[in-house]
Amino acid sequence: MDIYSEIVSLAKRRGFFYPSYDIYGGEAGFYDYGPLGTRLKHNVEEKWRMFYVLRERCMEISTPSITPYAVFKASGHVDKFLDVVLSCSKCGFSAKEENVDEASRSSLECPECGGRLQRGHMNLMFETETGALDRRQAFLRPETAQGIFVDFPFLYQFSRKQLPMGVVQVGKGFRNEVSPRQSLYRLREFSMAEAEIFFDPEDKTHPRFDEVADDTLMVIPADADEQMATVGSLLDSGVIGNQALAYYVALTRRFLLAVGIDDQKLRFRQHEPDEMAHYATDCWDAEIRTALGWIECVGIADRTAYDLSAHMEATGEDMTAFRRYDTARQETRRRIIPDMAKLGPAFKEQAKIIASQLEKMEPPENVDDGLVVKVDGEDVPVDPGLYDVVEEEITITGENVIPHVVEPSYGIDRILYSILEHSYFRGEKEGESYVRLELPSDIAPVTAGVFPLVSKDGLPDIARGIADELRSQGMLTYYDEGGSIGRRYARMDEIGTPFCVTVDFDTLEDDTVTVRYRDTTEQVRVPRNELAGWLREWVDG
Amino acid sequence: MDIYSEIVSLAKRRGFFYPSYDIYGGEAGFYDYGPLGTRLKHNVEEKWRMFYVLRERCMEISTPSITPYAVFKASGHVDKFLDVVLSCSKCGFSAKEENVDEASRSSLECPECGGRLQRGHMNLMFETETGALDRRQAFLRPETAQGIFVDFPFLYQFSRKQLPMGVVQVGKGFRNEVSPRQSLYRLREFSMAEAEIFFDPEDKTHPRFDEVADDTLMVIPADADEQMATVGSLLDSGVIGNQALAYYVALTRRFLLAVGIDDQKLRFRQHEPDEMAHYATDCWDAEIRTALGWIECVGIADRTAYDLSAHMEATGEDMTAFRRYDTARQETRRRIIPDMAKLGPAFKEQAKIIASQLEKMEPPENVDDGLVVKVDGEDVPVDPGLYDVVEEEITITGENVIPHVVEPSYGIDRILYSILEHSYFRGEKEGESYVRLELPSDIAPVTAGVFPLVSKDGLPDIARGIADELRSQGMLTYYDEGGSIGRRYARMDEIGTPFCVTVDFDTLEDDTVTVRYRDTTEQVRVPRNELAGWLREWVDG
Repeated sequence: MDIYSEIVSLAKRRGFFYPSYDIYGGEAGFYDYGPLGTRLKHNVEEKWRMFYVLRERCMEISTPSITPYAVFKASGHVDKFLDVVLSCSKCGFSAKEENVDEASRSSLECPECGGRLQRGHMNLMFETETGALDRRQAFLRPETAQGIFVDFPFLYQFSRKQLPMGVVQVGKGFRNEVSPRQSLYRLREFSMAEAEIFFDPEDKTHPRFDEVADDTLMVIPADADEQMATVGSLLDSGVIGNQALAYYVALTRRFLLAVGIDDQKLRFRQHEPDEMAHYATDCWDAEIRTALGWIECVGIADRTAYDLSAHMEATGEDMTAFRRYDTARQETRRRIIPDMAKLGPAFKEQAKIIASQLEKMEPPENVDDGLVVKVDGEDVPVDPGLYDVVEEEITITGENVIPHVVEPSYGIDRILYSILEHSYFRGEKEGESYVRLELPSDIAPVTAGVFPLVSKDGLPDIARGIADELRSQGMLTYYDEGGSIGRRYARMDEIGTPFCVTVDFDTLEDDTVTVRYRDTTEQVRVPRNELAGWLREWVDG
Repeated sequence: MDIYSEIVSLAKRRGFFYPSYDIYGGEAGFYDYGPLGTRLKHNVEEKWRMFYVLRERCMEISTPSITPYAVFKASGHVDKFLDVVLSCSKCGFSAKEENVDEASRSSLECPECGGRLQRGHMNLMFETETGALDRRQAFLRPETAQGIFVDFPFLYQFSRKQLPMGVVQVGKGFRNEVSPRQSLYRLREFSMAEAEIFFDPEDKTHPRFDEVADDTLMVIPADADEQMATVGSLLDSGVIGNQALAYYVALTRRFLLAVGIDDQKLRFRQHEPDEMAHYATDCWDAEIRTALGWIECVGIADRTAYDLSAHMEATGEDMTAFRRYDTARQETRRRIIPDMAKLGPAFKEQAKIIASQLEKMEPPENVDDGLVVKVDGEDVPVDPGLYDVVEEEITITGENVIPHVVEPSYGIDRILYSILEHSYFRGEKEGESYVRLELPSDIAPVTAGVFPLVSKDGLPDIARGIADELRSQGMLTYYDEGGSIGRRYARMDEIGTPFCVTVDFDTLEDDTVTVRYRDTTEQVRVPRNELAGWLREWVDG
């Protein structure tokens, strides 16, 4: 059995993940997280918040999955979020064009039945309708990002109008994939953690860049060879286009290592120009090597002003930030001042609107031959005697700019699969094969197995008490009194539990317990009343 | 302004919650949580996990929102999850029947235009379709519970076949409400936390019932007057039907108090028989008094075997648990033993299937006149000489039963609104009105405001360092150097931040900081290197 199948089998047997609606025959593209998988996911997402919300000081928001048509029309998803699909009307075969072999693609001959393939476009968004009787078209969001963009004016207020401003969202995304496959790899409903960091378009520096400048990582630039290099040198040589992108590439690597991804199986690949999503001008994928090949788990994209401009155009709302100049500028401005005393008699009830149009107008070079304003779509000429043009000195403290967005977008499900694979260790012990998941202590779903050595003499009560105490301090425990201690250790190793606590007869004497560490199988005795603190320190690193 | 409007206004101004897609004119029934609301929600959900996952030892799972048609057909939602709607074809008015005044209901005269009202049924589920070309009907789940029920066979394995077994899910629910309204009160996309606890149908006792037996709460039974009583006495007098229901009523109250609900504004009301959801036989609602009236925030329902039976019938899968008898029973069983030596020659290639049918058959009283078995839908008579009937002593260790489900189902959004209202305090200070949210320390979105007394002499750097250190330990901080200390305190009071830490000139001398407590405005000096531990202890209570 290959390692992918071993993991899928372990995941189902022990409750990490398994196909949804299994008793109904399953539904392609949907997976459940069982008790262990849900806790693993929880821990990974909490670690992500530690990185992005607590340390990076991003604001986390939470917006709906159901999104009105107008939002995705403006964002370009209605028109551009498409897959090219080849389908055969004879046998029903259908697949994304990129997944069909080249010969069939050029001959348009069905690889299954030899029939003729049709090329078509399919939008990947799930559709629904809101409203009781006045139904309105809506979509399930294919990314959480748009919920952030449409809130920009609010969020910019909350952040007290500072750039850079980071906003994140952790939640579900939905894509009606043509060919969902390989369990968590291509799902139709998936979990994402996205950060949208809004920068002044002329200043994509990051205040903490120096902290990551010496981090070394593997990159594959679009127009150069694979190379190991420091983040600083990649920026200096122009391989990565700006500090913000470089910083989030480095931060992504740090996060992935912290949750248990192997640095030797991680690389950052720059998108080819024709591979980019419709909103991006540059994109670096964090790719993780697994039994499924190199899989894209995080995309770090420069979305520039694309989304904010699109929503500004669609709604007319102000999606700009104010860039304050270092020193205010003095400028000379020409301005038209209507002469109401003359306009009134000349234009009667139209005078007011004409005056207001004149005030808004940029005066042309030559104002001596009169001006023309539009009223109700009609050109109305205004004689030169009816206004004055003055020159004023004004102070300009800054200007409005549409921020640029740099977006690290994490696919949580693929990361979870990769964590399991990279932490998966199979060995032999006393002639039997056994499995150990070497998950980081703060990511592992269960922190401690708690066992009474035997199921009598009061040991179970003490062990249950310890399990309850650890749980009351936020550490998930697994109480087990079944089978030999060796079997119980093996069950915990298989799900990556970093510690096992055994209550034995010495506990009755000196109130200590045995703590066994998963990866070394080393054992130490710890006083019972210090156990929670001792574990907490290990878990928090 | 009434308190509801004050809260909605505060929520929008400071970023707790506000209408979704506001720049697109909004979408009825959808709200965003801003940065403070999202953190508040996170903290409430984490507290809920502390109650249900860590202390109650329920397993948390995570299943998709998109659900195939067959699941909700079996569960009864396709046919019974309906609202009766009155609508007017003349003016477009439409509303749930229960929300239309009684006169209009009986006259069927439109309350808006006097036109004729039509009565219709509307299913509340959002519809969508999965699949690329072979589209399949699906729904967005109106409750998370069904994702748990359909996983029962898996989960029962994971729990090592123990009852009671608790399984929870925290996630989104979707209902296409006819009349969404009052911000978080009636949403079309909402957050739930549901626990499904599977009990032996003949044993709805709870192992920790004694811990809550003396808790006193306000109840309104369906057939008796409102009363204050202990949980134990309500169970003894039969007002609450079983220990499990009574336990989760008590636990719900404890949870609500822990997140900041006022015990004086909390009651448990039993549903009238005609008010119950289609799957419930008994239901107690936790109702919270707010400016919107008494609002239902948690439903604690006895769903009996309804859901598991429905899915078992629809799929044929085994949804039972094994009830082990205290002592194994000896029973005498009659069994048919086919005589293959004679069946073979008599039935040729059909002999095997006939033998297997005979083995499966419950022997009738009289077996001397021969038996009849079904083969491919045909009756096949079998002569008495072709089989024997024996009596055996067998040991029966237990039996299979379909578990009953007791379900506490929490509406997170309504609870969040209620928390804000119950913690809302408006007072006067130096002639100005001010607002304080008295949120519990571990629920408040921001744990500490961190201020330099002045923006010079190195105080900002020290303050920023403190803010970073607290964040690195998981406490959200808000750094603020704008305006007077009084203004900064007021901004933190308004969002419920329990502590403010000020770095002043004494800090430079003795490395202590001032900590001010929100509700008492008391101030103490704390050594800087003890601050994180000091706050952590307060927050953890």
